[in-house]
Amino acid sequence: MSSRSSRAKPVASVPEVVILRLPQYVRVLNQLHEKGTEVVSSQQLGNLLQVTPAQIRKDLSYFGRFGKQGRGYSVSHLLTELKQILGLDRRWNVALVGVGRLGRAIISYPGFAPEGFDIVAAFDSSPKIVGQVVGSLFVQPVEEMADTVRNKKVSIGIIAVPAAHAQEVMDMMVQAGIRAILNYAPTTPQTPPGVKVRNLDPVHALQSMTYYLTDGA
Amino acid sequence: MSSRSSRAKPVASVPEVVILRLPQYVRVLNQLHEKGTEVVSSQQLGNLLQVTPAQIRKDLSYFGRFGKQGRGYSVSHLLTELKQILGLDRRWNVALVGVGRLGRAIISYPGFAPEGFDIVAAFDSSPKIVGQVVGSLFVQPVEEMADTVRNKKVSIGIIAVPAAHAQEVMDMMVQAGIRAILNYAPTTPQTPPGVKVRNLDPVHALQSMTYYLTDGA
Repeated sequence: MSSRSSRAKPVASVPEVVILRLPQYVRVLNQLHEKGTEVVSSQQLGNLLQVTPAQIRKDLSYFGRFGKQGRGYSVSHLLTELKQILGLDRRWNVALVGVGRLGRAIISYPGFAPEGFDIVAAFDSSPKIVGQVVGSLFVQPVEEMADTVRNKKVSIGIIAVPAAHAQEVMDMMVQAGIRAILNYAPTTPQTPPGVKVRNLDPVHALQSMTYYLTDGA
Repeated sequence: MSSRSSRAKPVASVPEVVILRLPQYVRVLNQLHEKGTEVVSSQQLGNLLQVTPAQIRKDLSYFGRFGKQGRGYSVSHLLTELKQILGLDRRWNVALVGVGRLGRAIISYPGFAPEGFDIVAAFDSSPKIVGQVVGSLFVQPVEEMADTVRNKKVSIGIIAVPAAHAQEVMDMMVQAGIRAILNYAPTTPQTPPGVKVRNLDPVHALQSMTYYLTDGA
């Protein structure tokens, strides 16, 4: 049976583009699992994920063999292993900085906790906002970030401040030991090596699609 | 001088990862331009964008030569050309589907218009929401989507409906002729070829970082 000690280890350095696809694998496998599907072929998985079966096999090959030639993959086994590989078989503590309108919407978003992400601390620099209770969180001054990150074992930061303050907040997070950051600010802060950032800026996303709408593309 | 006819044409099919980086180039070049910087080296650009100078030169090589060996790039010329290449030298009409709490936040988000994106139509399927005025938009029934997309020359769709309805809405958008979609729903809908989708699901973004926080990474 699967256990921590049997966790599939990457056989080579895994390209980030593969890591970016794997959560979608997990999502699709979850859906198959809920429907009672026990075995899935790379062809079927490829159809659901809109990548080629060869790509599926190549992506999974970084973590060793999951399927037998011609037999397909066990949905529950592949799901368990991928969740372990991605660290989705445990809970993660998250700290949010910036409790304005966006920050409040993030705190009240019901989609995080069911997936294992718990916002356990919220910070702001405004004396008007510090001390307020938002959701079940007491908004703390940013100066307390390092202590709180250590005491509450926070691994992930969410930046929900205006663009002009994003770099400063990111530096504070990194200083406090945070190594994974979700950035909602419409800017791309500089990140030291070893720190992962995902930018959720809708303008950037729009700007990366219009190329395909122009005649020259 | 630059004009539509002198637009740099890609010399080869451009990898999507390059297109995804170019809006960041535009952002950084805009900042340099505002500070009055006239020339920038690939070394300096690389530092600001956190990629290697070689990567900068390779990315730009898809669109022809922008700089002279040892002289660096003209900030204003490179900015103008990249904006043309990405289609950021014009305005784009956007339609939103789903006028719940998230949809309302998107409509009132002040970051789109200054960058050339105008939300010109909003749709919902609920009779309670259809007919309301949100921002300056009159919420229309989804059945009117195809007509409105044609009449208002909408090129881009934003999905802000619950996950269970995202596929249905995407299908309607594609049917209406929309080829670029920003998806806020926490699911990855199937997309026909020729349609670009960017997913802004924060859970997916978190799930693609935790790998790097686990011991095995």
